[in-house]
Amino acid sequence: MSATHPHSGDPVFDLHVGGKMAVAATVPLVGRDDLSLAYTPGVARVCEAIAADPAMTQHYTWVPNTVAVVSDGTAVLGLGDIGPAAAMPVMEGKAVLFKQFGGVDAIPICLDTTDVEEIIETVARLAPSFGGVNLEDISAPRCFEIEDRLKALLDIPVFHDDQHGTAVVALAALWNALRLTGREPATTRVVISGAGAAGVAIAKILLGAGITDLAVTDRKGVVHSGRHDLTPVKRELAEMTADKTGRTGSLADVLDGADVYLGVSGGTVPEEDVARMAPDAIIFAMANPNPEVHPDVAHRHARVVATGRSDFPNQINNVLAFPGIFRGAFDVHASAITEGMKLAAAQALADLVGDDLTEELVIPSPFDPRVGPAVAAAVAEAARRDGVARR
Amino acid sequence: MSATHPHSGDPVFDLHVGGKMAVAATVPLVGRDDLSLAYTPGVARVCEAIAADPAMTQHYTWVPNTVAVVSDGTAVLGLGDIGPAAAMPVMEGKAVLFKQFGGVDAIPICLDTTDVEEIIETVARLAPSFGGVNLEDISAPRCFEIEDRLKALLDIPVFHDDQHGTAVVALAALWNALRLTGREPATTRVVISGAGAAGVAIAKILLGAGITDLAVTDRKGVVHSGRHDLTPVKRELAEMTADKTGRTGSLADVLDGADVYLGVSGGTVPEEDVARMAPDAIIFAMANPNPEVHPDVAHRHARVVATGRSDFPNQINNVLAFPGIFRGAFDVHASAITEGMKLAAAQALADLVGDDLTEELVIPSPFDPRVGPAVAAAVAEAARRDGVARR
Repeated sequence: MSATHPHSGDPVFDLHVGGKMAVAATVPLVGRDDLSLAYTPGVARVCEAIAADPAMTQHYTWVPNTVAVVSDGTAVLGLGDIGPAAAMPVMEGKAVLFKQFGGVDAIPICLDTTDVEEIIETVARLAPSFGGVNLEDISAPRCFEIEDRLKALLDIPVFHDDQHGTAVVALAALWNALRLTGREPATTRVVISGAGAAGVAIAKILLGAGITDLAVTDRKGVVHSGRHDLTPVKRELAEMTADKTGRTGSLADVLDGADVYLGVSGGTVPEEDVARMAPDAIIFAMANPNPEVHPDVAHRHARVVATGRSDFPNQINNVLAFPGIFRGAFDVHASAITEGMKLAAAQALADLVGDDLTEELVIPSPFDPRVGPAVAAAVAEAARRDGVARR
Repeated sequence: MSATHPHSGDPVFDLHVGGKMAVAATVPLVGRDDLSLAYTPGVARVCEAIAADPAMTQHYTWVPNTVAVVSDGTAVLGLGDIGPAAAMPVMEGKAVLFKQFGGVDAIPICLDTTDVEEIIETVARLAPSFGGVNLEDISAPRCFEIEDRLKALLDIPVFHDDQHGTAVVALAALWNALRLTGREPATTRVVISGAGAAGVAIAKILLGAGITDLAVTDRKGVVHSGRHDLTPVKRELAEMTADKTGRTGSLADVLDGADVYLGVSGGTVPEEDVARMAPDAIIFAMANPNPEVHPDVAHRHARVVATGRSDFPNQINNVLAFPGIFRGAFDVHASAITEGMKLAAAQALADLVGDDLTEELVIPSPFDPRVGPAVAAAVAEAARRDGVARR
C-alpha cells in the first residue's frame, strides 16, 4: 500500500488504507524444522489423519473457528445494492468485530452473483473451508430462501445477521423495557414498521418470546391477508401476526394505543402518530443513520427510547449478538443455530443489565466485556439443550 | 480448542492443534469512536467511494493483498485424491508461507466439488474478494483447463503453483547447474519424467528458456505423437518436445547420453539407467518424500544433484517462488502472471547464488532473506515490461 491515497487526511479513509484485517501465522516458521512440521513432510500425516476421520478437522485445522461472512452486496447498510466490491469494507468490518468480540476468525466473501441458486451452490461448495456461514446484507426476500436452503443443505451454523442479530438484540432490549414499564409479553401491543429481513425476523422472535398482539407494516400499511399484493413471505408473516388480531389499516392506525413501536424501515413516523401510543410507550427507532423517530421527539411521548446509533443511549447493535452467538456455537461444534439458541442469547443480554435497569439502560454497551462470554455461554448451553451440540 | 487431542504428544499434531493461522484486525476497536470509523456510520463513506469508483478497492480494502489458495483436494502432496477436508492442513500451510515469505494475506479455500465447470464458476464468483488466485493440488489434466479458463475470465493473477512454482524454481537451479558444468541451453539434452502438472509446466518454461532437446516421459515412455494413447494436453506436449528431435522409446532409452534428468513422477529410476547419462550429468529428483533417484545413488553418476527435500543440499522448493511472485504481482496490481514474470522470477533466484555457486549450491535456501524481495522486484519489473502492471 502506498502512503498516499485519494482521500488522504480524511480520518475514515486514512483508517481504511490497506483494509482493516490481515492473516497471521499461529505457528513458528523460522527454520527448516518448523517448515518440516507445519508443511512437508510433516503435514502429510495430519492430512492422512483427516482423510481417515473427518472429525479430526475439528482438532487440527482453523476451520472450526472460522466463519465466512458472505454478501452479494445487494442491501449494504442503508446504501442498497452497491455490488460486491463496494460491500467489502462492511464485510471486513464485520470480520474484525467477530474477532474482537468473539475470538472468531472471519473471512469476508463478496460474491460476483446475485442469483439465488448461484449463491446457494457457491456457499455450499465453500463449506469444507468454514465452521459457519454468516450471511450479510443480502436483500429481502432473497435472503430468506438463501438462508433456509443453506440451513437445510449444511451441517454447520448458517445465520443471516441482518435478520437474527437484530432480532436477538431488539428482543433483549424489549424484555428489559417491558420489565421497566411493568408489562407482560402476552398483553403487550407491538407494532413493527418494516417487513424486510429485520422486520420478519423480529416478528418471529417476538412470537417465540410470547408476544401475541403484533402487527407488521410495510409501505402499504399493515401486512394482513386481506391484501392482494403480498409476497409468499409476507403472506406467512400476515398469518402469524395481524391476522390473529384482525388488525388492518395504516401504520398510524395501529400505532394508536400501541405499547411498543419497533422501526426497521427507514423513513419518518409523524409525531402526531407517535403521540397516540399508549402511556409509558416503548419506541425502538432502529433505522441507521436516521431513526424513524428522532430520540428528542420520541422522548416527548415514550418512556423507553432506543436507536441503532452509538451517540444515544440504548444502542440496538448487532455486535452485541453475532460474535457471542458464533463463539458459543463453535465452542460446542453446533450443527445449527436454533431458535432456542437465539432466545438464550437475548436472555443473556437482557440479564446482563440486571439491577442497573433504567430508561437509559435497557441493553448493555457493546464494550461491556461481559457481553461476548455471557452470550456464548448461554448459546452453548442452549445448543446442548436443543441437541445440536456435537461436543 | 481443547488442550487435549487424539494425537497428543506427537510434535506434528501438537503443532497443528487449532490450525496454523488466524485473522487479525489491523485497526483499533477499543471504543465507540473506533467503531464509528471502522464500522457504521463511517464505513458507509468508503463503500460509496468504491461504488463510485471500483479502483478505490485497491486503496481501502485488504483485497489487493489477498490471495485465495484454492484446492479441490484431488492431488494433495503425494497422497492423491484425499478430498477437501483433508487438504486443508496443506492449504493452511501454504497460506502461512505466503504471509511469512511474501507478506501476502492468503485464505485457504477447499471446495466441495471436483467438477471442472463448478470449480471455474465458483472461483469466478469469489473473485471480488481476492487480489489473486493460487490454484493448488488439483489433479492433471483438469488443472490445465481450470487455470487456462480462469486466466481468461479474470483480470487478477491466476497461478497454479504445482505447475509454475515448481517450474520457476527448477529452471533457476538448472540455469546455475548449466553454468557450473559449462553448458548452453541450446545444446543441452534434457529428460523430464512425469507428464502431470509439474512436468508439463517445467517443459514449457524450459522451452521458453531456450532448451530445444527435450523429451518428457510418462508411465508408457516418451510422450511423442506416434503414440495413440495421448490426451490433448500430452499431444500438445509431444509436439513441443520429443517430436522436434524425433525421440521415442522408454525413459531408459532417452536417459542414455542425456545431460539433465528432471524427475517429477515419483517411482524409482534404476541406477543402471542413470549410469548411462552424459559426463557431468545433472539430476533433479524432485518427488517427495522419495526422490526418483536417491541422492547417494545420483552422486555416483552426476555432478549436480537436487531434490525436493530439506535434508539434502539444493532443495527445489516452491516456497522460493510463489510468495515473491504474488508479492511482485500485487505490488504493481498486475492483471495476470505472464511467462515473462515467471522467467524473471527464475532469473532472480538463479542470480542470488552468484559467486557462491558450487555443486552443493545451485539454488538459494528458502530462508535466505533476500529471496522474497529479489523475486518480487524482478516480477514487478517484468509485469511492467509485459504491460500487465496497473500501477
